[in-house]
Amino acid sequence: MSLYRRPLPEDQIPLSSSAGRRLFGEAMEAGGMESFFPLIEHFHTQAEPSYCGPGSLVMALNALHIDPQRTWKGPWRWFHEEMLDCCKPLEKIRAEGISLPEMICLARCNGVEAVGHFAEESDAAALSADIWRCARSGGAEVLIAGYARKALGQTGDGHFSPIGGVHPDGQVLVLDVARFKYPPHWLRLEALFGAMSAADPATGRSRGWMCLRPMAELPVPGRSCSG
Amino acid sequence: MSLYRRPLPEDQIPLSSSAGRRLFGEAMEAGGMESFFPLIEHFHTQAEPSYCGPGSLVMALNALHIDPQRTWKGPWRWFHEEMLDCCKPLEKIRAEGISLPEMICLARCNGVEAVGHFAEESDAAALSADIWRCARSGGAEVLIAGYARKALGQTGDGHFSPIGGVHPDGQVLVLDVARFKYPPHWLRLEALFGAMSAADPATGRSRGWMCLRPMAELPVPGRSCSG
Repeated sequence: MSLYRRPLPEDQIPLSSSAGRRLFGEAMEAGGMESFFPLIEHFHTQAEPSYCGPGSLVMALNALHIDPQRTWKGPWRWFHEEMLDCCKPLEKIRAEGISLPEMICLARCNGVEAVGHFAEESDAAALSADIWRCARSGGAEVLIAGYARKALGQTGDGHFSPIGGVHPDGQVLVLDVARFKYPPHWLRLEALFGAMSAADPATGRSRGWMCLRPMAELPVPGRSCSG
Repeated sequence: MSLYRRPLPEDQIPLSSSAGRRLFGEAMEAGGMESFFPLIEHFHTQAEPSYCGPGSLVMALNALHIDPQRTWKGPWRWFHEEMLDCCKPLEKIRAEGISLPEMICLARCNGVEAVGHFAEESDAAALSADIWRCARSGGAEVLIAGYARKALGQTGDGHFSPIGGVHPDGQVLVLDVARFKYPPHWLRLEALFGAMSAADPATGRSRGWMCLRPMAELPVPGRSCSG
C-alpha cells in the first residue's frame, strides 16, 4: 500500500485554506507571526519518514542562521539531516526516531542553546508564553513541539515540528515537516499541550517542547557530545 | 574556500526584511499573492548545487498536488529530484545543469502541462501577464523563471526558480531554490525579463519562463519521453 498525503482531522485548519489565511492575517495584526517569514524561508520536508526530529532541527538551524562550519555540497555550508551526526547515530534515528532529551543534545552540538520542557512538569500557560515569545522574536528564537499525533486524531504517533506563529484566540500554526503527509495547519494550543502530555515509550516521560536560539559562541564542529 | 550564503545585490529586497514584508502586504491586498501559500508550503532547497531546474520542478509538482504515482520513501508518494529521471540523465544534469527546453520535457513527463516562452520571442508585458495569471490562480498554475544571475548582479549564472507573487508596482517575488545562497527576494519584473534575455550557451537561444498546470490525464509513470 502506498499513500499520497492524508486528510487533516476536521478541527485542524490548513494554512492555505481561506479560513487558514484569515487566521494568518489576524495573527499577523496581533504580532503573532513575527517569526513566520524567517521560518517559512527554511520550511523543509524531513529527509526520511523517521526524521521528524532532525528535519525540524535542520529547519530551525538554517532559520537561526547558524553556520554549520562544515560544507554540505559544493562550497556551501548549510544544514541537512545527514550532517546531524552527534548524540545518536543516524541509523538508530532512522530505525527508531529520536526523543526530546536526544533532540536537546543534538541541538546543543550544533550551535544552539536549547531549553527543553516536559509537559508533565509544566502547563499550557507556560507553553503559550514560550510560543508567544518565539513568535514575536522575529526569527531570533524558534520553538519545536514534540507531541503524539494520535492525541490530535492524526495518523502515526510521536512527532516533532516547528511552530510558525500564534493567533490571539489560541490557535497555533504547526509547520509540519512531514510535508508528504499533512500541510501546515492551525490547531488549538490546548490540544497541542494535551498531545504533549502523552507518554513517550522511549523515555517513560511525557513529550514537550524546546526553545532554540544561537549560542553566544559556536561549538567546535564534530566535538564529542555529553549526550 | 567554502561559503555561508551570499549578500543580495542592494536593489533586491529580502522577503523577511521590513521592506520585503511591506511589499508582501501590499501585493496581498492587490491580489498578487493568491498562489503564495500553496507554493511556500513546498518551498524547497535544490538537492544539488546544479539542480536549480529539477529543484524548482519538485517544488512546482508538489505545490500543484501532482501524484507521482510511485513512492519516494516508506509508503509515501512524493516528488524529490532523484525521481525526475526522464529527458536527461540526472548525472548529466548534475554535471551541466538543464536548459529551458529540457525543463519543459521533464515537466511534461511528470504530469504537468508546460508552456515555455523564450524571452527573445516575447516581451516584458507577456511575462507580466503570465506572472499575474499564475499569481492569481490560487496555486492552480505555477510559473518558473529561467534567467542569468549575472545580469542581476548575483553570483553564478544560469538559474531557475519559481515566482511566488507580484506587486502592482512591478516587483516580483523570486522563491530562490538555492536557499543556501540567497533568501527569497523581490526584484523588478523588467530586471527579471532582462536577465531572461541573455543567451544560454547550451541552446544558443535566450532564457525564458514556463507556466505549469496539472494535465487533465496523468502520464504513465516511467514512460519514454520524446525528449
